[in-house]
Amino acid sequence: MREKQGAGSIKAYTKEGDYSYTLGAFPTFELLAARPQIVRRVLASSDFTDSEKLKNLCQEYQVPFEVNDRLVAKLSNKENCYAIGVFSKYLSRLEEDRPHIVLVNPKNMGNLGTIIRTAIGLGIGDLGIILPGADIFNPKTVRASMGALFSLSFEHFTSFDQYRRRFPCHDIFPFMTKGATALRPGNLPTTRLYSLVFGNEASGLDQSFAQVGTSFFIPQTSKVDSLNLTTAVGIAIYAFMNSDL
Amino acid sequence: MREKQGAGSIKAYTKEGDYSYTLGAFPTFELLAARPQIVRRVLASSDFTDSEKLKNLCQEYQVPFEVNDRLVAKLSNKENCYAIGVFSKYLSRLEEDRPHIVLVNPKNMGNLGTIIRTAIGLGIGDLGIILPGADIFNPKTVRASMGALFSLSFEHFTSFDQYRRRFPCHDIFPFMTKGATALRPGNLPTTRLYSLVFGNEASGLDQSFAQVGTSFFIPQTSKVDSLNLTTAVGIAIYAFMNSDL
Repeated sequence: MREKQGAGSIKAYTKEGDYSYTLGAFPTFELLAARPQIVRRVLASSDFTDSEKLKNLCQEYQVPFEVNDRLVAKLSNKENCYAIGVFSKYLSRLEEDRPHIVLVNPKNMGNLGTIIRTAIGLGIGDLGIILPGADIFNPKTVRASMGALFSLSFEHFTSFDQYRRRFPCHDIFPFMTKGATALRPGNLPTTRLYSLVFGNEASGLDQSFAQVGTSFFIPQTSKVDSLNLTTAVGIAIYAFMNSDL
Repeated sequence: MREKQGAGSIKAYTKEGDYSYTLGAFPTFELLAARPQIVRRVLASSDFTDSEKLKNLCQEYQVPFEVNDRLVAKLSNKENCYAIGVFSKYLSRLEEDRPHIVLVNPKNMGNLGTIIRTAIGLGIGDLGIILPGADIFNPKTVRASMGALFSLSFEHFTSFDQYRRRFPCHDIFPFMTKGATALRPGNLPTTRLYSLVFGNEASGLDQSFAQVGTSFFIPQTSKVDSLNLTTAVGIAIYAFMNSDL
């Protein structure tokens, strides 16, 4: 049953807490559209121009709606935040018959959110995270995902081995600066069930990942250290999604 | 002749000023490696561990080197900035016989810098900017580019028409959410002299760009509004650089 919290009972976000929130109108509408059943309440500032639309949507889903400038300002720390959706954290599972993105120890919440938005946009809806990793429910992650988090299936694993044992049928493709194969249209596998695996921005994947599958590198010049992680994930998904064309 | 400024004469960055600076050790080394002749002086903090290496490089290029914690702190506004390179702004020109990226009215300096890093990394070294646009010499842009700016050829234009008249032989490919052709390996042109054109994050390109060339869209689901601009540019360059493979 949905918990209806009284005004003022919402505290600053904590990783241990059982709720989080969307900061901004766009992700709040996305939250209501994708997962109305987890929304505890919606807050709006008095100068939000789309307040009527948001209020009506809340009524439709029986979600408490409240105009509360003080609370919006307190939770958002930002001047241009007009709406906030408070939602219960939830469990999610990866699908066994779909391709996955696997992030090993992602550190940055902004990057994690942008990667979620990119994956959902390009057509991969399943994300595995090898712990330790950035908090997927932190409002910064939710904000960077622009609400795409609510369309994502995700799951956490304590090690890559644990992930591997859960999904033994996926072909594994680690992306490494020193990967074995160049990511080019002619080199792409025809498999439909695959995991694209990435390390974090700082250190990438360690060399042991070269053994767990066919490692790829994205062809690049020597003029930069490495590509931005989000961009690398985007290019990899694009290449795999269009490999048979 | 290089101007040797006295200590304390460096002010906060202005768009109108004739100098800017790199914030951080990595872009400062990149600056010295790529364009030593424009470096006016280099500052380091007293706890920078690679200070000797930086000092020796400065001696080699006859660039004044100074340990100055106060000035580093003042210019950087960041705790983890250990080195700063002060450099003269410079003019740059696009090459006529190479492919270009063209950004129409880019707004965000962080995005502009990341796009520069991505383009240089994937092998396109020429960037046209249609004004108004984010300041390419702002320290935020330089920092986001990780120093890749110093390997870039760039040029500003007051309108896309002005760019077009300068480079009449380039095949123009505007990237638009409602583009005519899906960006897929089978659809890519074989041309070697092309311009990939992008609007800004907020509004994209207006519909008139559909007339100036073959417009492309990156295939994506309806679950997100649009891809991140940097990711879209990265995917487009990757696709074009690998179109004949």
